[in-house]
Amino acid sequence: MSFVNRRGVTIEWGDCDAAGIVFYPRYFAMFDWSTASLLAAAFGMRKPDYLRHWNIAGIQMVDTRAVFHIPSSFGDEVVIESQVTQIGRSSFSVHHRLLKPGENGTEALGAECWEKRVWSVREPADPTRLRGAPVPAEARRMLGLPPG
Amino acid sequence: MSFVNRRGVTIEWGDCDAAGIVFYPRYFAMFDWSTASLLAAAFGMRKPDYLRHWNIAGIQMVDTRAVFHIPSSFGDEVVIESQVTQIGRSSFSVHHRLLKPGENGTEALGAECWEKRVWSVREPADPTRLRGAPVPAEARRMLGLPPG
Amino acid sequence: MSFVNRRGVTIEWGDCDAAGIVFYPRYFAMFDWSTASLLAAAFGMRKPDYLRHWNIAGIQMVDTRAVFHIPSSFGDEVVIESQVTQIGRSSFSVHHRLLKPGENGTEALGAECWEKRVWSVREPADPTRLRGAPVPAEARRMLGLPPG
Amino acid sequence: MSFVNRRGVTIEWGDCDAAGIVFYPRYFAMFDWSTASLLAAAFGMRKPDYLRHWNIAGIQMVDTRAVFHIPSSFGDEVVIESQVTQIGRSSFSVHHRLLKPGENGTEALGAECWEKRVWSVREPADPTRLRGAPVPAEARRMLGLPPG
Repeated sequence: MSFVNRRGVTIEWGDCDAAGIVFYPRYFAMFDWSTASLLAAAFGMRKPDYLRHWNIAGIQMVDTRAVFHIPSSFGDEVVIESQVTQIGRSSFSVHHRLLKPGENGTEALGAECWEKRVWSVREPADPTRLRGAPVPAEARRMLGLPPG
Repeated sequence: MSFVNRRGVTIEWGDCDAAGIVFYPRYFAMFDWSTASLLAAAFGMRKPDYLRHWNIAGIQMVDTRAVFHIPSSFGDEVVIESQVTQIGRSSFSVHHRLLKPGENGTEALGAECWEKRVWSVREPADPTRLRGAPVPAEARRMLGLPPG
Repeated sequence: MSFVNRRGVTIEWGDCDAAGIVFYPRYFAMFDWSTASLLAAAFGMRKPDYLRHWNIAGIQMVDTRAVFHIPSSFGDEVVIESQVTQIGRSSFSVHHRLLKPGENGTEALGAECWEKRVWSVREPADPTRLRGAPVPAEARRMLGLPPG
Repeated sequence: MSFVNRRGVTIEWGDCDAAGIVFYPRYFAMFDWSTASLLAAAFGMRKPDYLRHWNIAGIQMVDTRAVFHIPSSFGDEVVIESQVTQIGRSSFSVHHRLLKPGENGTEALGAECWEKRVWSVREPADPTRLRGAPVPAEARRMLGLPPG
């Protein structure tokens, strides 16, 4: 099975909008760093280190969707649980579940997110442009997924 | 046909990440205000005024997806074209196309976004909670969609 | 002496700009939540709870300055140390020091921030407007400062 | 006299916090882009172009202060007026005034900001580090300030 990472997130005043609940684009920023944390845990390196290690410019987002079930507000302590669900040649998919502590130790699903990202390197001819590159076999193995 | 709204957006330095391109959660903030601008244009009122006019707390996001085709960077002038595509009883769907000026006056599709939102009022019993309410017939008509 | 609060902050990819370092407005968001955390620690309540407890709408910022000594980047683990330095009738001052772990357990001063904030309530006649109100003696005492 | 630049800014829903007014770190993002716009107007080039033209990595912020007089909220149309007030060898100072339209065509001062920034280049020995460099005489002249 593939690697699962959980991290705690405190919802801040500045994450909330005039309705008093999380401004949803902020959830995407939380999910983005959850993917970075998942990769950091799987690779055993912080993000700046794994970018250098694999010689990539980033892990570009190409397609993402989120559904929002239960609002959160400032002061809430939530957990984001993240998992790589599939790896293609140069892309991979991540699934996030944002969990809110409920009664009796249960957790309620506050929001859910799906991502498709691309392992991206700089174009040798034009370093301001990025293009997809194959996910290395070692990275695949560290993420707990079979070689593609 | 339903109402279409276009607005120009300048990509700012602070919208971009360490790869030098727009940090994708910022696109969702742009799309959020594009929906607000679309409604403002259809209703002929700024957002604070139409919230008061319809007596709603907000237009809550429940489901959104975006795909990213061509990166943008600071200084880029893009156009976001937005349209309500469907209205249910208390929810409605919006489609955004982010267009980048290309050669000879053409426009390239930089990103696309789909939203499902709910016309939301405060729970009378607990004003900190929101719940869906029917989209008024007049609002529907102003958005150019047949009564549901 | 007044209360001091320390909290750890991880710099995220989305906090950084195209130069690869923290986009400085993000530091102000970190300092804002550091003040919220300082008050939460002093009052023994989360922010939504102390807003209700003291019946205030917020702790409005009226004047803030920050100086930036050493840049930080994504993946960095910093500490923000915060302290209320003065309390007037309805305003108070906070000082933040952002510390970066250095060699041999030392800490380097990455940034510093000063804030002047106002204890704010809603105008009874117009709840959309805020005005200053006296900081209660009990709140003062909890912050470790002599009654004004 | 030095160059003055004015630009209009619409306050968005996502700029506001749970008190319904602009979350003040967002003002710093607006002021940051106002400085970028001021330089773009003075140099006659967009920010990516003037970074390349002058061969700089950025215009790093080292010290900034803002005072907030009148809150703004989503839907408000404000004007930010910006001016370079002083240029040193490798640093320069900017002053911003955020103006809100008042009655009879008057403008009220909503907020004010002071910045000290450094003309920054990449360290040749370590391109991940930035250091100050002299502001070129031509840039100085374009900003309307006497050679330092």
